[in-house]
Amino acid sequence: MSATRPTNARATPGTVWGVGLGPGDADLMSVRAHRLVSEARHVAFFRKRGNPGQSRRTVDGLLHAQAVEIALDYPVTTEIPLEDPRYAETLAAFYEASVARLLEIADAGRDVVVLCEGDPFFYGSFMHLHARLVGRVPVRVVPGITGMSAVWTATDRPVTWGDDVLTVLSAFLPEDELARRYADSDASVTMKVGRRLARVRRALAAAGRLDDAWLVERASMPEECVRRLVDVPDDATAHYFSIVLLHGEGRRP
Amino acid sequence: MSATRPTNARATPGTVWGVGLGPGDADLMSVRAHRLVSEARHVAFFRKRGNPGQSRRTVDGLLHAQAVEIALDYPVTTEIPLEDPRYAETLAAFYEASVARLLEIADAGRDVVVLCEGDPFFYGSFMHLHARLVGRVPVRVVPGITGMSAVWTATDRPVTWGDDVLTVLSAFLPEDELARRYADSDASVTMKVGRRLARVRRALAAAGRLDDAWLVERASMPEECVRRLVDVPDDATAHYFSIVLLHGEGRRP
Repeated sequence: MSATRPTNARATPGTVWGVGLGPGDADLMSVRAHRLVSEARHVAFFRKRGNPGQSRRTVDGLLHAQAVEIALDYPVTTEIPLEDPRYAETLAAFYEASVARLLEIADAGRDVVVLCEGDPFFYGSFMHLHARLVGRVPVRVVPGITGMSAVWTATDRPVTWGDDVLTVLSAFLPEDELARRYADSDASVTMKVGRRLARVRRALAAAGRLDDAWLVERASMPEECVRRLVDVPDDATAHYFSIVLLHGEGRRP
Repeated sequence: MSATRPTNARATPGTVWGVGLGPGDADLMSVRAHRLVSEARHVAFFRKRGNPGQSRRTVDGLLHAQAVEIALDYPVTTEIPLEDPRYAETLAAFYEASVARLLEIADAGRDVVVLCEGDPFFYGSFMHLHARLVGRVPVRVVPGITGMSAVWTATDRPVTWGDDVLTVLSAFLPEDELARRYADSDASVTMKVGRRLARVRRALAAAGRLDDAWLVERASMPEECVRRLVDVPDDATAHYFSIVLLHGEGRRP
């Protein structure tokens, strides 16, 4: 830096890193993620207010002693239905405010690591920040092991063989669409199951696939639970971190 | 161990580890994979004869000085067509022979790490060993970052938003089936593109999705190449490690 540069000059902006932590077990984050997280001086993460947050929990004991933590508290999770226009409005305002906090750090020339469950670009919350940050400050993404990889590993069976078709679905889709896609796929992963387990179960039954389905909750975490769906009580709801899985049975020599 | 135990007693068998290395950049393997690979005394990996092998290349400089390397050389790759019964017969015999080599190590009480590109249970070669090893010796699998995660990260755009449907396809599927599934998916990943790029291109065009498609070769490796498919010459073939990607454009606040 030149000695004559005014001390109040705008610094070179820092980078916002979206860092995939993998499915929950800290041992499954990448070497790069581990290094970025443990060296970071500014660490941001989403959480539900009053809850430690899964991504923050994953890095417990790993953060630098001087790390500044920036908790981004969701203003709503399930209090407003997804279809209500206030849901999108409330979340959009929250993402804008979160971006402002990250820009303040980056504009001061400092890097900030945003902790991301799983893989940031695969149904991740970070995507909503990324879309608003690109072109304003440098943004970089580190991929992670997805929750679905931890799920099929937990069942101790491969998910896809040969030319198997794998379909990844959200349990928010209508029941008849879920059923149609289960019947038209070799393997499938259903995300966001939670309180929609009964719908997923009916759709699997309609597709003739119920007996093949597995419910995996909190894969790779200490509370991991792996069950055939037929062994789960009819009136059960699933944990937020849960996936329903159908394995493919394709070509193999 | 008891001092009276005969020295020729059968030892407690070692564990065969299928270790996902991720998409190619050593920095993207998990902390667990890194530890298992660098501490292993027996390391096995698939390769095409005369070729160093991508998984072995990923761990260059990482292996223990006393590590014994076990190269499993594919007897065929593209010399016999997939449809020819001799292809399955030849590969089955090769997998049986590979399993015999791993059992010899494990039966002597030693662990062996099998290096796996990407995630072992997602279209991985290790699956063919796993199916033959289960019930004979302990087998454990470490998931990895998939090549497709590296692909969408390389395009710097999220792959799935909200309730987007993601379909993972093999380019070996018939052209009309590929086209039907491209038209019926929000996001899609087409694996095993290689010499089938022209078929994939025609199927995308038939589905009206050609302009949206990306071809990513060797994602996360030094030779990474990211292009819109319309910018790739019509007569080109793709690298073995290549994926054609369609991004979803779903709900976002």
